[in-house]
Amino acid sequence: MYEDIKKQIRDVKDFPKKGIVFKDITPALADAQCFQSIINAFYDRFKDKHIDKIAAIESRGFLFGATLAEKLHCGLVLLRKPGKLPYKSIKESYDLEYGSAALELHVDAVKKGEKILLIDDLLATGGTMEAACKLIQKSGGDIVACTCLIELEFCNGRSTLEKYASVETFLRY
Amino acid sequence: MYEDIKKQIRDVKDFPKKGIVFKDITPALADAQCFQSIINAFYDRFKDKHIDKIAAIESRGFLFGATLAEKLHCGLVLLRKPGKLPYKSIKESYDLEYGSAALELHVDAVKKGEKILLIDDLLATGGTMEAACKLIQKSGGDIVACTCLIELEFCNGRSTLEKYASVETFLRY
Repeated sequence: MYEDIKKQIRDVKDFPKKGIVFKDITPALADAQCFQSIINAFYDRFKDKHIDKIAAIESRGFLFGATLAEKLHCGLVLLRKPGKLPYKSIKESYDLEYGSAALELHVDAVKKGEKILLIDDLLATGGTMEAACKLIQKSGGDIVACTCLIELEFCNGRSTLEKYASVETFLRY
Repeated sequence: MYEDIKKQIRDVKDFPKKGIVFKDITPALADAQCFQSIINAFYDRFKDKHIDKIAAIESRGFLFGATLAEKLHCGLVLLRKPGKLPYKSIKESYDLEYGSAALELHVDAVKKGEKILLIDDLLATGGTMEAACKLIQKSGGDIVACTCLIELEFCNGRSTLEKYASVETFLRY
């Protein structure tokens, strides 16, 4: 069903570093019909889930998160890299292969009991998405699902995330 | 007409540095109705302009650019900070108050003669948007307009951009 989308995902070798094959989604975005198909896939999966807000992870998660929020008529909140959010925020650090990174969320972004859909473009080890889950839980949000367009199954991120919520992906490698 | 949106834009003093009053759009995004109003404002302005692709500037430009691309049924291309795009890119540097910055665009993102709408969240001095215009022109694209939700009129960015295309903004300060 998603084969037409997969055809527009480009493998770029050795990005961002030697040995990594990067899944480049830009051809899929630039093709109007393909972009529609991606958003419709997300929409069909979540249209009956009564989502209050979508929490989108910087930066490629913004592309799908904002579009889906508009289509579902729900609110949009941003999970950003440190120092980007202007107002009072909470922060969650996570480990990378080398070093660490962090995400931040405004303290007033999510209200207690709101049903939240977490979204990013790609699920690998799940470290970023797990930090996002912790921020939403600390804010009192109820995580409906974690969703990504692409899942790299060999990275096994799903096993990290299933203790927080259902994990919903569309293109698996 | 846009007063309801303006009410949801929060002033944050001394961000990102002392003396700056930052226009925080996150309350406007988190309010589902307000986010719809923003996207409808862009949509009504450009729905008859036969846009082929929207070129969205990282990162807040992604929020409006992706959503509008879906609603207009056109393609989406990304103008990103250096080192983020995985494929062969062209680069344009521009001056900031202190130091410089740059934007990149994939070499195959825009085809000759395509009608391109450039989008970001906020227009200040216009340096970033001008770099974006140069990248689109180098790629052979025909810039229909430069659009931003917010315009800081005292920064006079409009005068920098009007040699490239029409400048279309919604909330002016």
